[in-house]
Amino acid sequence: MTEIATLGEFGLIRRLTEDIKPQNPSTRYGVGDDCAVLHYPDKEVLVTTDMLMEGVHFDLTYIDMRQLGYKSAMVNMSDIFAMNGTPRQLIVSIALSKRFTIEDTEAFYDGLKAACAKWKVDIVGGDTTSSYTGLAISITCIGEAAAGDIVYRNGAKDTDLICVTGDLGASYMGLQLLEREKAVYYQQVEEAQKKGNRQALDSLKDFRPDFAGKEYLLERQLNPEARGDIIAQLREANIRPTAMMDISDGLSSELLHICSQSNCGCRVYEKSLPIDYQTAVMAEEFNMNVTTCAMNGGEDYELLFTVPIGDHAKIEAMEGVRLIGHITKPEFGHLLVTRDGNEFELRAQGWNPLSAGDGVDKVDTPNPRS
Amino acid sequence: MTEIATLGEFGLIRRLTEDIKPQNPSTRYGVGDDCAVLHYPDKEVLVTTDMLMEGVHFDLTYIDMRQLGYKSAMVNMSDIFAMNGTPRQLIVSIALSKRFTIEDTEAFYDGLKAACAKWKVDIVGGDTTSSYTGLAISITCIGEAAAGDIVYRNGAKDTDLICVTGDLGASYMGLQLLEREKAVYYQQVEEAQKKGNRQALDSLKDFRPDFAGKEYLLERQLNPEARGDIIAQLREANIRPTAMMDISDGLSSELLHICSQSNCGCRVYEKSLPIDYQTAVMAEEFNMNVTTCAMNGGEDYELLFTVPIGDHAKIEAMEGVRLIGHITKPEFGHLLVTRDGNEFELRAQGWNPLSAGDGVDKVDTPNPRS
Repeated sequence: MTEIATLGEFGLIRRLTEDIKPQNPSTRYGVGDDCAVLHYPDKEVLVTTDMLMEGVHFDLTYIDMRQLGYKSAMVNMSDIFAMNGTPRQLIVSIALSKRFTIEDTEAFYDGLKAACAKWKVDIVGGDTTSSYTGLAISITCIGEAAAGDIVYRNGAKDTDLICVTGDLGASYMGLQLLEREKAVYYQQVEEAQKKGNRQALDSLKDFRPDFAGKEYLLERQLNPEARGDIIAQLREANIRPTAMMDISDGLSSELLHICSQSNCGCRVYEKSLPIDYQTAVMAEEFNMNVTTCAMNGGEDYELLFTVPIGDHAKIEAMEGVRLIGHITKPEFGHLLVTRDGNEFELRAQGWNPLSAGDGVDKVDTPNPRS
Repeated sequence: MTEIATLGEFGLIRRLTEDIKPQNPSTRYGVGDDCAVLHYPDKEVLVTTDMLMEGVHFDLTYIDMRQLGYKSAMVNMSDIFAMNGTPRQLIVSIALSKRFTIEDTEAFYDGLKAACAKWKVDIVGGDTTSSYTGLAISITCIGEAAAGDIVYRNGAKDTDLICVTGDLGASYMGLQLLEREKAVYYQQVEEAQKKGNRQALDSLKDFRPDFAGKEYLLERQLNPEARGDIIAQLREANIRPTAMMDISDGLSSELLHICSQSNCGCRVYEKSLPIDYQTAVMAEEFNMNVTTCAMNGGEDYELLFTVPIGDHAKIEAMEGVRLIGHITKPEFGHLLVTRDGNEFELRAQGWNPLSAGDGVDKVDTPNPRS
């Protein structure tokens, strides 16, 4: 393992970026000057950014640097897809404390590059610097869309159908699982220390939690995928959503955003929520309400969108898209209709990154988002 | 003073951004959706980003939140100007620990907004989140330039004249001064504590270092200005630099970048370096070599550029621009010619943000940059 200082800033940047070859015609000039130069004569330019802080947004005891790079890139691309756009360029800033090595930064970049390769996105610049403590990541993603194709949050209309992709709550259950295993591990270490049991302490070094049968939950938490495939499918099916966003804070929170910006109400049916089997089993094990996990879990990075009711048949025919309810007039409120026919007003219980401050409450609240 | 948690993320963003009205036709949609939407049909898009970490890039014991916002925006605009472009949009991410209040974030945004107002730049998005410890800032600035107007670092040619704007080393001396006063203050506190002198401790609460006669140095360190005025002057005078960048790491380091990317050498004359009177006085007081400060100080945010020798008269006639040397064939090396006619090979002693890691060496090395 090699200290970063041995390479210096410029040496490190060279090492991390020398194999990057821009692939998009819109990338005129990438890494190496004061700015990147992009060329968008016929399209609108989409820009989104996200900041991820160690101890708040991720925990390196269970996500590795490569996964972190992959996820950081994916969650930004997800925002571009959520406007019905195509991601094209990525700019990445990282600040690292002295405990990080060159190999760590390379692993991070490997993850970034894998995510970028998947969607043919060019890394065109950034900033690599030091931090007093911990790791900070800031990613900006740039994409394109024809002006008429862009889908905002404010276009949902009464009677529109509400759709979500994939399934919900799995990422949140994955996080709960990781947090539990971490707690178990530290508890065992503490006990072994108390008893002065050196042998137990040594064997704990090889502690590998058993995640058999729960791989999907971990995958969803550690290696989320942006749903560009759905955007392509929608285009093929000639469906233009009236409103769209990605689900990072939890379905409830995002639905309320769409309703507030579109000035409408909504009815969502509990029985229609897409929930994976493993999510349901895990919720049972944790004695949690699986609907609450699906509604408020966060970090799903699925797409939430509305379409005119006339697209009903087309949507039904699409794989990976679930119809979960419909838009109403604003005076009807924002309702979840339970299996037994009761109605509950939706509330944005989504993760509040501004109250997490000092790492408190991390086990009890869903993880952050964009 | 109000805890940020009382507003929540969305409440805070609303409060910080509700008075932002986009002014540029290229800003189609700003804050409020998954992405900002920009429109650049006739221009190239320039993108640059910078990350600033508390304890590494700034110290809140001597820069206030408003100044920090202003400076964070200005150093990014400086990169756009350094490509001969015009800044248009800004995206800002901040991560704050619990010790920061709503008023702090408002002050930060006030500074950002003042810098943006100065250059008619629109704040179009960002991310506001929490940090486990300290303040992290990431700014991305987007600008425009006609394709033929962009000036890279790689166009300098043998016999070109080397020019710099403003003066050099003042920001670095300002930092030295602030660091010294901070050290003096903590020394006095420590002594008073040792002696149990409560009265002395109380009076130290009103400690206000005397910066009379040194205001310019502080101004340069705390309120740097991006040199968009020079870009406008160059355009008016019909001068197109062959290479250009802004001086953030120190003149030596930046000159070496231009020479390396343009495959050329350079000769710079000590006697021609623009140095303010206060910088010289302060260097004397610190027993430092003022030329070293000017060559390696960093954070000047002045422009360094090269022009064809035929532009000599035009450059001489421009206010605020100094001719400091000329470009040579690469085999002649990169030389500083001293007043007494000696020649020294330039070295990039600029600040190395990746060795600063844990706040060590902060007094002895110039401050960071982009």
